Amino acid sequence: MKKIVSILLILFLLVACKDTAGSKETPKTATSEVVDPLPSWNDGQTKTAILNYVAAVTNTESESFIPIADRISTFDNDGNLWAEQPAYFQLFFAIDRVKALAGDHPEWKTEQPFKAVLENDMEALMKSGEHGLLQLVMASHAGSSTEEFDAIVKDWIKTAVHPTKNVSYDKLVYQPMLELLQYLRDNDFKTYVVSGGGVDFMRAFVTDIYGIPEEQIIGSRIKTEFEYNDGKPKIVRISEIDYINDKDGKPLNIQKIIGTKPVFASGNSDGDLPMLQWTASNTHKSFMLYLHHTDAEREWAYDRDSHIGRLDKGLDQANKDGWTVIDMAKDWKLIYPFEK
Amino acid sequence: MKKIVSILLILFLLVACKDTAGSKETPKTATSEVVDPLPSWNDGQTKTAILNYVAAVTNTESESFIPIADRISTFDNDGNLWAEQPAYFQLFFAIDRVKALAGDHPEWKTEQPFKAVLENDMEALMKSGEHGLLQLVMASHAGSSTEEFDAIVKDWIKTAVHPTKNVSYDKLVYQPMLELLQYLRDNDFKTYVVSGGGVDFMRAFVTDIYGIPEEQIIGSRIKTEFEYNDGKPKIVRISEIDYINDKDGKPLNIQKIIGTKPVFASGNSDGDLPMLQWTASNTHKSFMLYLHHTDAEREWAYDRDSHIGRLDKGLDQANKDGWTVIDMAKDWKLIYPFEK
Repeated sequence: MKKIVSILLILFLLVACKDTAGSKETPKTATSEVVDPLPSWNDGQTKTAILNYVAAVTNTESESFIPIADRISTFDNDGNLWAEQPAYFQLFFAIDRVKALAGDHPEWKTEQPFKAVLENDMEALMKSGEHGLLQLVMASHAGSSTEEFDAIVKDWIKTAVHPTKNVSYDKLVYQPMLELLQYLRDNDFKTYVVSGGGVDFMRAFVTDIYGIPEEQIIGSRIKTEFEYNDGKPKIVRISEIDYINDKDGKPLNIQKIIGTKPVFASGNSDGDLPMLQWTASNTHKSFMLYLHHTDAEREWAYDRDSHIGRLDKGLDQANKDGWTVIDMAKDWKLIYPFEK
Repeated sequence: MKKIVSILLILFLLVACKDTAGSKETPKTATSEVVDPLPSWNDGQTKTAILNYVAAVTNTESESFIPIADRISTFDNDGNLWAEQPAYFQLFFAIDRVKALAGDHPEWKTEQPFKAVLENDMEALMKSGEHGLLQLVMASHAGSSTEEFDAIVKDWIKTAVHPTKNVSYDKLVYQPMLELLQYLRDNDFKTYVVSGGGVDFMRAFVTDIYGIPEEQIIGSRIKTEFEYNDGKPKIVRISEIDYINDKDGKPLNIQKIIGTKPVFASGNSDGDLPMLQWTASNTHKSFMLYLHHTDAEREWAYDRDSHIGRLDKGLDQANKDGWTVIDMAKDWKLIYPFEK
């Protein structure tokens, strides 16, 4: 939670430059007609490793051949398919949501942590601690039906703007990863998002952005209740954590929901390490991919000491076990689709 | 739990005639080449209702047209895709498993409820009550890794034999439902199992029997833990209930895991009613299907007063709201694939 508090600090210093601009752009993805399936990747070890792996496991003559039913690939989201700086995008949503709801909650003017959010008073918010931040998430994510929440997020993602990049959040996806997702699907892999982000938050827009159907999105959840009144059923989101989909939770949830061990796993932080370890133990030839944020100029550079997306033990194991590590600055021709 | 105890009573009176026969037969399913997609269904209202629904929602000219991404169908398993009498098949598994493990547990000779199982002593088992039955399930389902458990169930399903039908359990699937599943898939519906049965129990054989991939099987779960020792990851099944996928749990789990409201739901008991109510509220034209067990001769006849698969409130709502009810005796030409 210290980490989230630090994020909030950065966040509050930055939240000043929002407007309601930002039409949604559906990023183009590579198709099978294109000769190079990964055009935004520079030639080199990383790209070659990916191409060689897919060629080997889809070749029926190869001893590494993997039947289509077993071609499960799992991708972390924050910092892996889209950016996560200066704070997880879902935290920007939580804060915007508290501000939007403030009119219906006059008591928030005097109650922490809401007072702090409304007054952009970072010091007070920090004092509210873990309990206060949890209240913030619950107030912004619970209390609505699943349909209402979906509509709220869909509206937010169209109108909210990133504090430093000045584009809508859905524009900050990584073009090379969009190409990788499409390339895997063209080779009969199923692509899953397996993220610490909220599953219902992601479902509101991830399908459009990544071409991944709602049932292939796995994330953290709050509890829900089923109500049936006057012939009308409703699923209501309540203020209690159901599941945090991070660290050990990732392979556990993969097993619960998918039921098949992935052959391809992609992440960018130590929170993804158990998912990559689980994938590495597949009896099929498997592929473990870490994204290393090395590009302070075009994106952000951070790893072992970062409060967001810390990559420390994961980097050690990747080096030791020969997993593939993307060097963002070196391996990617461009970062975001709008750079094309 | 009184209900499970009653089941166990019937069960113990019946478990006498087991052998290791029973080669596994993959049931034939209808293909699009066949003129009648539902050949094991008698002509009549029920079959016509199904055919008319699918024709309407797959016709792009129709105002009821449903885009492919929204064609989600969910099926209960026990008593709906395969039989559930004289007891849930998974309970037979639990008891067989306790007997198989008894050699490693000399203490079970004197400890209830295991002593009762080993001695086929029904009265003593009943006295162990809910707590005892829970112990039985935990002892038979926990303590192994996910891979080990899968292998155990796969072995059991090949060798265990139903106490009265004298065939392996996987032969007691309903041929008309296999045809319905295939017919829906031929029309670009995704077919899901949404059952109170254990998800890892079902996954060991449901894919082979129904042609439904592992990630489209939703069921009850026990908790699991991730271990990583000497570079070897392991998911271990522990003795604690994680989720009971029944009643309200069905729509809640559908929303959590699939994230899309079904347009077609099929069940046979009051435990399926919230799933059907949820489906009935779809803004797309939806189809709610109840299987009514009316065939004492070829299968079993039971409904409002049954301890297993009670169908009471569901039958009332189906009649009131005009949902489709299969009259097994009247609507099905044959029950099991081996009758062909």
